[in-house]
Amino acid sequence: MKVRVAVNGYGTIGKRVADAVAKQPDMELVGVTKTRPNFEALRAQAKGYPLYLAGGGNREAFAAAGLSVAGTVDELLRKVDVVVDASPDKVGRENRTLYDAAGLRAVFQGGEKPEIAEASFNALGNYTTGRGKRFLRVVSCNTTGLARAAHVLRSTWGVDHWEATLIRRGADPAESKKGPINGILPTFRLPSHHGPDVRTIFPDLSIATTAVVVPTTLMHVHVNHVRLTKAPQDAHEVIATFRRTPRFRLFAAWEQVEGTPQVMEYARNRGLGFSDMMENVLWEDGIRLDGRDLYFFQAIHQESIVVPENVDAIRAMFDLAKDGPESIARTDQSLGLPGP
Amino acid sequence: MKVRVAVNGYGTIGKRVADAVAKQPDMELVGVTKTRPNFEALRAQAKGYPLYLAGGGNREAFAAAGLSVAGTVDELLRKVDVVVDASPDKVGRENRTLYDAAGLRAVFQGGEKPEIAEASFNALGNYTTGRGKRFLRVVSCNTTGLARAAHVLRSTWGVDHWEATLIRRGADPAESKKGPINGILPTFRLPSHHGPDVRTIFPDLSIATTAVVVPTTLMHVHVNHVRLTKAPQDAHEVIATFRRTPRFRLFAAWEQVEGTPQVMEYARNRGLGFSDMMENVLWEDGIRLDGRDLYFFQAIHQESIVVPENVDAIRAMFDLAKDGPESIARTDQSLGLPGP
Amino acid sequence: MKVRVAVNGYGTIGKRVADAVAKQPDMELVGVTKTRPNFEALRAQAKGYPLYLAGGGNREAFAAAGLSVAGTVDELLRKVDVVVDASPDKVGRENRTLYDAAGLRAVFQGGEKPEIAEASFNALGNYTTGRGKRFLRVVSCNTTGLARAAHVLRSTWGVDHWEATLIRRGADPAESKKGPINGILPTFRLPSHHGPDVRTIFPDLSIATTAVVVPTTLMHVHVNHVRLTKAPQDAHEVIATFRRTPRFRLFAAWEQVEGTPQVMEYARNRGLGFSDMMENVLWEDGIRLDGRDLYFFQAIHQESIVVPENVDAIRAMFDLAKDGPESIARTDQSLGLPGP
Amino acid sequence: MKVRVAVNGYGTIGKRVADAVAKQPDMELVGVTKTRPNFEALRAQAKGYPLYLAGGGNREAFAAAGLSVAGTVDELLRKVDVVVDASPDKVGRENRTLYDAAGLRAVFQGGEKPEIAEASFNALGNYTTGRGKRFLRVVSCNTTGLARAAHVLRSTWGVDHWEATLIRRGADPAESKKGPINGILPTFRLPSHHGPDVRTIFPDLSIATTAVVVPTTLMHVHVNHVRLTKAPQDAHEVIATFRRTPRFRLFAAWEQVEGTPQVMEYARNRGLGFSDMMENVLWEDGIRLDGRDLYFFQAIHQESIVVPENVDAIRAMFDLAKDGPESIARTDQSLGLPGP
Repeated sequence: MKVRVAVNGYGTIGKRVADAVAKQPDMELVGVTKTRPNFEALRAQAKGYPLYLAGGGNREAFAAAGLSVAGTVDELLRKVDVVVDASPDKVGRENRTLYDAAGLRAVFQGGEKPEIAEASFNALGNYTTGRGKRFLRVVSCNTTGLARAAHVLRSTWGVDHWEATLIRRGADPAESKKGPINGILPTFRLPSHHGPDVRTIFPDLSIATTAVVVPTTLMHVHVNHVRLTKAPQDAHEVIATFRRTPRFRLFAAWEQVEGTPQVMEYARNRGLGFSDMMENVLWEDGIRLDGRDLYFFQAIHQESIVVPENVDAIRAMFDLAKDGPESIARTDQSLGLPGP
Repeated sequence: MKVRVAVNGYGTIGKRVADAVAKQPDMELVGVTKTRPNFEALRAQAKGYPLYLAGGGNREAFAAAGLSVAGTVDELLRKVDVVVDASPDKVGRENRTLYDAAGLRAVFQGGEKPEIAEASFNALGNYTTGRGKRFLRVVSCNTTGLARAAHVLRSTWGVDHWEATLIRRGADPAESKKGPINGILPTFRLPSHHGPDVRTIFPDLSIATTAVVVPTTLMHVHVNHVRLTKAPQDAHEVIATFRRTPRFRLFAAWEQVEGTPQVMEYARNRGLGFSDMMENVLWEDGIRLDGRDLYFFQAIHQESIVVPENVDAIRAMFDLAKDGPESIARTDQSLGLPGP
Repeated sequence: MKVRVAVNGYGTIGKRVADAVAKQPDMELVGVTKTRPNFEALRAQAKGYPLYLAGGGNREAFAAAGLSVAGTVDELLRKVDVVVDASPDKVGRENRTLYDAAGLRAVFQGGEKPEIAEASFNALGNYTTGRGKRFLRVVSCNTTGLARAAHVLRSTWGVDHWEATLIRRGADPAESKKGPINGILPTFRLPSHHGPDVRTIFPDLSIATTAVVVPTTLMHVHVNHVRLTKAPQDAHEVIATFRRTPRFRLFAAWEQVEGTPQVMEYARNRGLGFSDMMENVLWEDGIRLDGRDLYFFQAIHQESIVVPENVDAIRAMFDLAKDGPESIARTDQSLGLPGP
Repeated sequence: MKVRVAVNGYGTIGKRVADAVAKQPDMELVGVTKTRPNFEALRAQAKGYPLYLAGGGNREAFAAAGLSVAGTVDELLRKVDVVVDASPDKVGRENRTLYDAAGLRAVFQGGEKPEIAEASFNALGNYTTGRGKRFLRVVSCNTTGLARAAHVLRSTWGVDHWEATLIRRGADPAESKKGPINGILPTFRLPSHHGPDVRTIFPDLSIATTAVVVPTTLMHVHVNHVRLTKAPQDAHEVIATFRRTPRFRLFAAWEQVEGTPQVMEYARNRGLGFSDMMENVLWEDGIRLDGRDLYFFQAIHQESIVVPENVDAIRAMFDLAKDGPESIARTDQSLGLPGP
């Protein structure tokens, strides 16, 4: 029997998770919620996803737009086994009470504090921890990117210490009200919250992160310096190791992918939904090994990287796969992500 | 029998035209050309498009990248009936000699001067003119957008005079070397070349255009003021007329599409290849009628708007459809563009 | 005896007006107000401008920052003849009651509605109207730019009709929270409010304006098409006329000022306070005359263009000059603006 | 007797150095060079700096623009003791032969390779090394910023190792042709050249740098992690130490300087020429100490930070001051930079 899934909040993350859930043979997308009609609601309808009224939603507004509403969020919650909460930051916290009262399981996003769930989750990092849990929190885009890479480095060579500078995009492509237009904004919380957030997945990881915000909409870029426990033989060994891990895409020099503009162009060329890039992006030329010191850039597509993680979180909760690698392989195949 | 098509130059326009040609039941994509291997060449191979070496291309470079090369551009030209020339601006002019010598027909892009072809072409505007021609030139993205709208306005109410300000994107999304980063650059050729270019389609159209360049990569926006010959009854008549014309997408206020960031987000939601938006984009709230004076905004996706036009140009050349509307309907259906 | 002036609100406009007032021999800057200490408050102190606590200001916060506070805004108002209200948009309206109760004159900014004052004001446009008024409103940056140009064209050749497209900067240089980062946003109020606002200066002017917002911080650019009543002899006559009008700077081709980035670089080179550019900026190559049809670009520095206008507004109110030209000449000389 | 100085190349750096030299009581600015007339040449004339024709310069072009030319660069070189070469990157190398033949001393900029000069120079870092040299090279903006901070940290607590991520501006404010408009570009030379360049000043410094380019024009930002030899008592000690060093500006939280947009706004408020910010900019809230591990952000104004260094380089060459601190103090006072 399929796990019945609701997606509460059909915005940047919600619409992607809805698509991903709809593609899983072991899951059923029962419905999605919106508070107001807009072009995304139109898309939900075109996709055949039943639309439910969230929060202060107004049924007449949907009717005026020619959009059918299948019911309220409360009605939706009665029809499902689990909710993926993709509501705006901090709203998830309020929703938790609702889910709890309805006896539902729920997956929250990384904009919520870790305390919202029994555990924070990353498929490569701690799939097993998620098993059987009622409330999981998929860590944020930057943390997911760090956790994936941490999994690779820890399990292969060990990590003594990690320093990362996060160069964050100022706004998502469709957020036209947010800046900066011209300038660099340091994040004065030093170290940034990302390090502690990675430790919700790997509690013993020594990591310090620093963040700045820059005027771009495409991707974040991480500049990493990792002191490994054991030295890899050479950079090729590092490259080969990342290459055989799912959810990593390494660009070779001849591909002429100079930065995030070309990464996202590659993603458009590849043609997954929304022209997304769900993998950690690394460049072979952007990896340098100096003994045990590993330096590497990675780019993170803030809109989509957590999407497969949400699917795996559901699978872990309901124990639908024998282990993380199996869940990841099934998720990735369904989403069109290349196998390692 | 299918028309055999080569696409010479597999960049921003070429890769899109190749995809479009490959979807036409009356055409066969025989091959595409590249001078150097890169992530786009990889895509061509993944799509199964035979890759031919263009210009100064180096076969070893492709081999080193693991890409198969089917031959040289000269070999490709011997296998086809027509070439779509999507080489960089001004290179098409040199290629013309080649095509002529090979006795081939060819479609050029708007970066070339009108003199390169027997006629300039726009499917809504002058499909019939293209019939049987050996050399056609699909007008540029901005001119295509203006010509489509001119077709609607001329054929419905007549156009006495048109003034347009073109707010142009500084670079395409993947062109990371081009600016400006911060600033507005007026184009001091006054009026801009776009007006005369529209007259290659409608020789008697009275139109004056002015252009500026701004720091964005997504779309151009045209601010139009048209003095019509006959007054429409009201703005609703104008909206309804655009709505029933193919290759126009009008956004209603409730869709909450505030500008080009949301238009391109809509395009990603819709899911055509490359997240493209091949239609002229208008906003219902961005249309105002004052007697015979019509004001409207339209946004033009510079990367994709000419793609269906290239397909129609081939069809006109070989007389594969009974008229423009039939060709347009067939092209649009194959590309997934909604009918009017 | 000097007119005693308070500047209420020491932000983008207020700090510039304060500097300008401080340079007038017939005015005395009595004080400026701030609600919170910041680097601008520090500058006021360094300049020797007495700082008064505005609105909900907290005296302890200033003390902690080592800034002296001379009193409250109410105390300041008791010491002056006139207030320049440079508070945020819409706050001026509330302040008006205060000024009225105190029996003070006041100059408001263009972010307020025209009704706030007895008249809207532009020095070239309607200096005489301002004479003796108690409440004046200096029109906004874009409107000031249009009004200045309208003055020149109306008084020389007459204006039958004017169409302007306003390409607006998304945020000021220091407003790092505002976007858009990448995209063009049409203003769906058609025509935009700028046309009617120019008519607060020239009630009989036929003008229609359209606006878009783009990702830049430097300047607005206006694309103008004016049908004149009488044809100038040639473009040189137009250029010469603008050149001999104060508050216009025309760039010749050899100066190599390609757009707003170079205009603002010119301003930094010139070295007025804040690297400001208080004149309407035109390009000789950006002027085209076709009979009675005049096309021209002009760039408007949103932060500073209204500064001299505020000074002239005070002078008009108190009848400190025999006419507009005299006031303008005195203001411009004091500010270091070149005479025509 | 004053040292007679020529500035060869009157662009971004040259025009600033010319202004700075003109303010030194122990130096005389004899002339500056330009190849073509433009708004900067106009400024030179307005400032009274004799203009000489550089390289392929055309005298008629200057005459047509109404600019007087005092002679050729060769004539200029015969009148001076030293040349500051501010020509474009790599042109300095060719000029060196010229200067050598003329028996002149010369100061080159950091765009040239270290080998061009007898020593690389930074006033805080190695003033003494510069003494009596014929050819000095002032290191680039980023290297100058790192070298200044390295001087402070090394001389106070010692530096065991330094890791810096350089977030570089894509173009200068007036360079409107350069991008990227939207995106982040990693520099694949790992580590970047900046580390080795700092070692031209401090040969024994252990430093590794990584760079990315982002779409902004204002400033670079460095994210630094330094393992000190000896632990400072606390962050306040670090703050106090930077505060008492010339050419450092530390912003306190109450100043509300959130990032580079506000730093440059501060600079405009302060009112030095070109609204420049010649100091290393640090934020008190952007400094964190964890034992011997010091984390700090610093912002570097790429256009102006090397200007005082050029002045000190001349002074070192001619031994015009008793030591570095004296030269720095004289330079800074003349330029209006606040003493520590």
